[in-house]
Amino acid sequence: MKKGISNHQIGDAFDDFMLIKSSTKGVASNGKPFLTLVLRDATGEIEAKLWEATKEDEQTFIAEELARITGEVNQFRGKAQLKIQSIRPAQPTDGVKASDFVEKAPVSQEDLMERITEAIFEMKNPNLQRITRHFVKMYQEALLTYPAAVKNHHEYVSGLAHHIVSMLNLAKELKELYPDLDQDLLYAGIILHDLGKLKELSGAATPSYTLEGKLIGHIPMMVEEIGAVATELGIDGEEVTMLQHMVLSHHGKAEWGSPKPPLIREAEMLHLIDLVDAKMNMLNRSLDKVQPGEFTERLFAMDNRSFYKPLFADQYKE
Amino acid sequence: MKKGISNHQIGDAFDDFMLIKSSTKGVASNGKPFLTLVLRDATGEIEAKLWEATKEDEQTFIAEELARITGEVNQFRGKAQLKIQSIRPAQPTDGVKASDFVEKAPVSQEDLMERITEAIFEMKNPNLQRITRHFVKMYQEALLTYPAAVKNHHEYVSGLAHHIVSMLNLAKELKELYPDLDQDLLYAGIILHDLGKLKELSGAATPSYTLEGKLIGHIPMMVEEIGAVATELGIDGEEVTMLQHMVLSHHGKAEWGSPKPPLIREAEMLHLIDLVDAKMNMLNRSLDKVQPGEFTERLFAMDNRSFYKPLFADQYKE
Amino acid sequence: MKKGISNHQIGDAFDDFMLIKSSTKGVASNGKPFLTLVLRDATGEIEAKLWEATKEDEQTFIAEELARITGEVNQFRGKAQLKIQSIRPAQPTDGVKASDFVEKAPVSQEDLMERITEAIFEMKNPNLQRITRHFVKMYQEALLTYPAAVKNHHEYVSGLAHHIVSMLNLAKELKELYPDLDQDLLYAGIILHDLGKLKELSGAATPSYTLEGKLIGHIPMMVEEIGAVATELGIDGEEVTMLQHMVLSHHGKAEWGSPKPPLIREAEMLHLIDLVDAKMNMLNRSLDKVQPGEFTERLFAMDNRSFYKPLFADQYKE
Amino acid sequence: MKKGISNHQIGDAFDDFMLIKSSTKGVASNGKPFLTLVLRDATGEIEAKLWEATKEDEQTFIAEELARITGEVNQFRGKAQLKIQSIRPAQPTDGVKASDFVEKAPVSQEDLMERITEAIFEMKNPNLQRITRHFVKMYQEALLTYPAAVKNHHEYVSGLAHHIVSMLNLAKELKELYPDLDQDLLYAGIILHDLGKLKELSGAATPSYTLEGKLIGHIPMMVEEIGAVATELGIDGEEVTMLQHMVLSHHGKAEWGSPKPPLIREAEMLHLIDLVDAKMNMLNRSLDKVQPGEFTERLFAMDNRSFYKPLFADQYKE
Amino acid sequence: MKKGISNHQIGDAFDDFMLIKSSTKGVASNGKPFLTLVLRDATGEIEAKLWEATKEDEQTFIAEELARITGEVNQFRGKAQLKIQSIRPAQPTDGVKASDFVEKAPVSQEDLMERITEAIFEMKNPNLQRITRHFVKMYQEALLTYPAAVKNHHEYVSGLAHHIVSMLNLAKELKELYPDLDQDLLYAGIILHDLGKLKELSGAATPSYTLEGKLIGHIPMMVEEIGAVATELGIDGEEVTMLQHMVLSHHGKAEWGSPKPPLIREAEMLHLIDLVDAKMNMLNRSLDKVQPGEFTERLFAMDNRSFYKPLFADQYKE
Amino acid sequence: MKKGISNHQIGDAFDDFMLIKSSTKGVASNGKPFLTLVLRDATGEIEAKLWEATKEDEQTFIAEELARITGEVNQFRGKAQLKIQSIRPAQPTDGVKASDFVEKAPVSQEDLMERITEAIFEMKNPNLQRITRHFVKMYQEALLTYPAAVKNHHEYVSGLAHHIVSMLNLAKELKELYPDLDQDLLYAGIILHDLGKLKELSGAATPSYTLEGKLIGHIPMMVEEIGAVATELGIDGEEVTMLQHMVLSHHGKAEWGSPKPPLIREAEMLHLIDLVDAKMNMLNRSLDKVQPGEFTERLFAMDNRSFYKPLFADQYKE
Repeated sequence: MKKGISNHQIGDAFDDFMLIKSSTKGVASNGKPFLTLVLRDATGEIEAKLWEATKEDEQTFIAEELARITGEVNQFRGKAQLKIQSIRPAQPTDGVKASDFVEKAPVSQEDLMERITEAIFEMKNPNLQRITRHFVKMYQEALLTYPAAVKNHHEYVSGLAHHIVSMLNLAKELKELYPDLDQDLLYAGIILHDLGKLKELSGAATPSYTLEGKLIGHIPMMVEEIGAVATELGIDGEEVTMLQHMVLSHHGKAEWGSPKPPLIREAEMLHLIDLVDAKMNMLNRSLDKVQPGEFTERLFAMDNRSFYKPLFADQYKE
Repeated sequence: MKKGISNHQIGDAFDDFMLIKSSTKGVASNGKPFLTLVLRDATGEIEAKLWEATKEDEQTFIAEELARITGEVNQFRGKAQLKIQSIRPAQPTDGVKASDFVEKAPVSQEDLMERITEAIFEMKNPNLQRITRHFVKMYQEALLTYPAAVKNHHEYVSGLAHHIVSMLNLAKELKELYPDLDQDLLYAGIILHDLGKLKELSGAATPSYTLEGKLIGHIPMMVEEIGAVATELGIDGEEVTMLQHMVLSHHGKAEWGSPKPPLIREAEMLHLIDLVDAKMNMLNRSLDKVQPGEFTERLFAMDNRSFYKPLFADQYKE
Repeated sequence: MKKGISNHQIGDAFDDFMLIKSSTKGVASNGKPFLTLVLRDATGEIEAKLWEATKEDEQTFIAEELARITGEVNQFRGKAQLKIQSIRPAQPTDGVKASDFVEKAPVSQEDLMERITEAIFEMKNPNLQRITRHFVKMYQEALLTYPAAVKNHHEYVSGLAHHIVSMLNLAKELKELYPDLDQDLLYAGIILHDLGKLKELSGAATPSYTLEGKLIGHIPMMVEEIGAVATELGIDGEEVTMLQHMVLSHHGKAEWGSPKPPLIREAEMLHLIDLVDAKMNMLNRSLDKVQPGEFTERLFAMDNRSFYKPLFADQYKE
Repeated sequence: MKKGISNHQIGDAFDDFMLIKSSTKGVASNGKPFLTLVLRDATGEIEAKLWEATKEDEQTFIAEELARITGEVNQFRGKAQLKIQSIRPAQPTDGVKASDFVEKAPVSQEDLMERITEAIFEMKNPNLQRITRHFVKMYQEALLTYPAAVKNHHEYVSGLAHHIVSMLNLAKELKELYPDLDQDLLYAGIILHDLGKLKELSGAATPSYTLEGKLIGHIPMMVEEIGAVATELGIDGEEVTMLQHMVLSHHGKAEWGSPKPPLIREAEMLHLIDLVDAKMNMLNRSLDKVQPGEFTERLFAMDNRSFYKPLFADQYKE
Repeated sequence: MKKGISNHQIGDAFDDFMLIKSSTKGVASNGKPFLTLVLRDATGEIEAKLWEATKEDEQTFIAEELARITGEVNQFRGKAQLKIQSIRPAQPTDGVKASDFVEKAPVSQEDLMERITEAIFEMKNPNLQRITRHFVKMYQEALLTYPAAVKNHHEYVSGLAHHIVSMLNLAKELKELYPDLDQDLLYAGIILHDLGKLKELSGAATPSYTLEGKLIGHIPMMVEEIGAVATELGIDGEEVTMLQHMVLSHHGKAEWGSPKPPLIREAEMLHLIDLVDAKMNMLNRSLDKVQPGEFTERLFAMDNRSFYKPLFADQYKE
Repeated sequence: MKKGISNHQIGDAFDDFMLIKSSTKGVASNGKPFLTLVLRDATGEIEAKLWEATKEDEQTFIAEELARITGEVNQFRGKAQLKIQSIRPAQPTDGVKASDFVEKAPVSQEDLMERITEAIFEMKNPNLQRITRHFVKMYQEALLTYPAAVKNHHEYVSGLAHHIVSMLNLAKELKELYPDLDQDLLYAGIILHDLGKLKELSGAATPSYTLEGKLIGHIPMMVEEIGAVATELGIDGEEVTMLQHMVLSHHGKAEWGSPKPPLIREAEMLHLIDLVDAKMNMLNRSLDKVQPGEFTERLFAMDNRSFYKPLFADQYKE
């Protein structure tokens, strides 16, 4: 089986299909046009230059298209870059499809849905259960395909549901250790906390921010929507305010986008569970790419730190 | 006519009716109970001690009641304190009523309402006009009596409407000077920006924060309500998002409670107009209490600054 | 059975033994001396004033002594204060002992020790296991009695061991959810992270800071001690540096006392687990004191927030 | 009439005169020298590359010279760049002059001067009037040509006077709304607040910082100069200190360059009026360049925000 | 010889003359007036209460008067307080004078003046020498009596000159170690850096801030004055700007009151020398009051730190 | 004698030997490989491009090798760049050696060692003397060759010892001016404060950070080592804690890497002496490169400031 782009080293030859993520025209210092392509497969991305590009190249090699490329992986300003030797558009007979070239959660949509459904089923508080179930039904398709973020963590297809399910599992264990926690509230908060992103972002595959996303943001949008759904379902107990508060406060501080800090126990835990799962996702994926004794690349969302994998990392694993 | 409590100097004798704002029991070092009363009239507040208070005193002199008090204005830890010599509850025959003992805006509710109505009438954009008119109608009574804040600025009866009207006047002039401004949007933003306080605060006279106020806050509450009203009125143009954005961003920065900073011209101006009017209200009221050549008390909401009134302040006034 | 001081309301009569935590002489405005006593039992503390104290009182009612007190719980500046009506020193025949008047962890020292021993037993990495076991053996007695902190969280007898065991349990679950975590490293980091406090603090019961604690602090002291123990045991693999790094970085940021931020995955998780358990300890103990629908007192170590207990908090509990 | 450079789109052909703002020699990767020219006309600037430049080109195409250029507008790293096809120096017979290629205030110098004179004429306080008149007379020529800043706002010929006049107009309206304001003090503060820039900057057209500007700054320089002028005019009332204070504090905070914050009402308003006018100038000029439904480029001096122009922006304009 | 107030312990009897620094009337909880006196001698200050004060007491025991007091040193809220047993005003026959009751520099005014004169004499740069000499002559009397600050460091009679002389000595040594330093510039900067305080403060003995001090501050005032003196002396070389820059930047950062940071080598050193001498003055005076093995009181101007005096502090002294 | 690379101007021809500091392969836009060489001699560094580099070039011109180069100094993006015309590896017959191509302290290792030895000899406190002497003996060779830092200040061979000796000289003078200082403690702190860098950095010539350096840092590493040495020498007086505290706190604040701020007088002075000497080293070396009337390049470690050398800088020098 062919290895993905992330597994190539500097100097490796390359010969495979790639999905074009973006294509930008430039003019070289010799006056000739060239294309800067960002290419991707399921393992990652790479930048490539197509020198002396023709008008036809410009119209053929555009975003969302697949192409067969041969070349060599070089280094440019400390980053890998693919030097294209030959390129041709993919043909129907090649039997490749775009959906195989994007990163996906390591768990199937069915399993993710099942775990979410189970969590809702376990709820005893009918107000929380009805609101949560309503949202999951209403947004089921998007919920199962959207990423949890545009970059940094869970930024892949089904990333949002994957993040929710990891957090539900964490919450279940915390409830065991700290039985005073209100499990229903915590579960509901986890499932709903980032659903505003389904409106903040434009789509599952190559998401950008919507106008509402830019001007209002997913947190106030979701607070509003919980209010609207509660009205629609005729629910007006304190549960509505608590759920809105949990969504509102889950970034922890005003300067991180939460106009109120967590003021109930479950909101504080939601914030911490969110942190733990997002950080573990970033750390595991970065550390997977390095060998024991090496440091990862700098992780922007973790204060630009570069993490070390100890030499004895794999020594005592079962 | 009797002068109010704010116009008494240290050492003055006092003999007048006062409204009891709060009453707290304590035990003196000699073991005897006493009451700490916060008293107010239309000009301001003063603390008073009722030593050796009986059980009956405790039940008589409670918050929201009026009392006739004689005594002397002393100083305690740098603040004026009323030393009570005699106190009796007000009688129906005294002809005093509580509403005369609270501070009010210097403009009548009718005039305030008229100016707001006029601003709505001038609007050309029907979406903005309908939403704004709906809110004003829905909340008219509260809007005309609530303060704009619990403390710091416009913290008096009709303070919110007074603040709105001052800001509308300011906006009208700015529109003259900067004709590119969208007057409808600015007017609508001004009228709605703080309406969430009608739900954040418990009442017009001695307001405290509601549970929703504490856990959600007036900004997200109002964003939600604009969404609900727009749905109710069947309006879904970009005006709804812009209005929500203006309310959301009017504190200017995340750390001041606005999860998004102003991202449209009118939102930026709304934020600045709000600042100008709030600051002028605080400054004028503090400077009114001092003589030329003196400094005001420290103003907490203005970075704890103490402002100077120049010696020539009144010299060239018409 | 008698209820503890924390369960008294303002106005309640009081008649019970208490442990004197501190005793300070003052002079009242009438020129007579009095004593300010801080009294405690296993449920909490209260301040009390003994007016017109004699020389004998001064010498009798001193820190660490027990006394039988009758009086009434009053309020002073918003805090409960015990008004003493009578007081006498405890007699041998009273059958009370000081150790019953301090707060303790809700788990026995035996159970705590067992869980720590079990965690060490599970380790596969011999270097980590030997170092950790050495420390636990060396400090066993103090480890089982010291608080985790002077105030804020786990500030009771056996608090440190209680905190360690809760964190070990949390770590065990995290390892299930994120199998890439190095359990041995995480366990060792958890057990050792705060052991420096055994030298930073003066004792288990009423701890104060030692000179070394004030000038060096528990983090660098423990880093040094891990180095010394490793030398003593003849261990010099990378495990020593990793353990030192985990202790060094567990406060997360330089401004919180960690000269290096976490730079390995397990150090990042140690920091987060520490946060989760400390916060849950503070939250649970504060929320236990209020009824549904009420807010807790302000929690200094949680950004001075006051937390709300929802009305439906106990409604769906099993 | 020919459209300016700011109105060209990527891909447009270009054929017009431009003023050379700067010219820098470089060596291309083929070892041949080239010139990087920054070109401007009254509407804006563009960068251009003149490849394979001869020694003669180097001496001909230098800063402050005019040239006739044909070429094409390309994109380079997200910014427009002019690809030069032919270039020749402007001839006397071309009838173009440098002063037509710089941006100017949209109001004539005569009108600006008239408004400033009128404001001084209205003053009733003779001390303030004499000092202000003295400065305006002394610096009249520079005052009418200098920009208000090197970049960000009013950074064009007569920008300083334009800024002053806008602020005077704003102040006039504020005085109407808040009659307690001392109009003379506010007018004097507005006219003088940035006059130090006439010494801080090297000239009106392509200003750089003088040595005194870099080491002392316009604020302390102007405070000093007010003192000197007052001495010269024999004025020593409190007005001198107040004027110095207004200049000194008009940046609002120590970290923004004002060693004292505003401590008189008019100083606070001067700071806010300055903000309002500077921001409106930046916003209007950026929004003019985009269509409804688009965002502006990021505005560095406004916290790097990108502003949105609503779709309905021009819909209800008269 | 009698020991000063700073050398009394809690519990000591007291019988001596004191200077009254301030006297404030209060009303006790028994309704009777009392005076809070702040008393001082050459070693320090103490607060005292004069209970049941008569009208006559009020008029006799006022600020700036001397009184003979007997009493006892007690503790109140952790601070020493003098309990007055008897008090009488000082008589001419007592032979005490106010100037003996204030703290003074440990060096005579003659010696201080001589060292400053010597430093000016050593200068080779005539411009710097003339300006500095002019200022010293003009302000000689105040310069030799003013404190360097109202509190924190060198806050005693002749404190400013003492601070200048210490800094000159430090600068002389630095010049030896770093010969590139411009000694003339450094000396001139040291002598002038705080002279603005002679106008910022109201006097030498019990200084308060003048209006100009509050609204302009000593730094911009001195920058202005250097400019005026240079004009008067007909000096306009770069030395004037450099001297102004050194005064302007000597607080190091905008947020500490310097609108420009140091931008020449000697300005950077002036800032550091100022820090070293101010801190040594605070540290030495605080450490003098404690024994080896003790901590000082918290020093507000040193980030509220409490400093330790090692046990071996005096062991190896010659 | 040949002038070094730092003394070349843009446009100068170049013909000399250089040490290759690093060599990186790149691919030009024409597809041909090139080498980016960083070259250095005892006066500084320069970047150079070797276009169309052969495989042999790649293997010949590598880090740590010497080469004879002719070419021309050009400018690229505002920095000097050497355009290589010819290059050949150095031959044994050329008689050049690498150690002549690195920057060194301006004082010989013998003189540095002598001054350090003398300072230890002067100590009267035997505990401090023994510990310090032990460290100097143990690390003598590294101590005399390592730089004080990787960049910014004293970043040359013997830089650490040079920094220590300058600080000792400064301390000697401070002791004269402030006789209360404990000279032994200050000397010991100065000699040891940065010795942890001998383990934090990989070597003297082209130092990088070790793993322990990255994960623990030189401060905690040195605190640990002082503890170990004291144990080894059987010393346990308070001197050990004081020395550890001085090392620990010498960065001054938690956010600068010191988990405790200075809490003894000598620690505060150590921090300030360190600042003074590091800043003078940076300032002198930058100002040496510019002429009177010019500004230095921006100094990153001094808040990115650019310093001015006054026109009269050299005018009155002896």
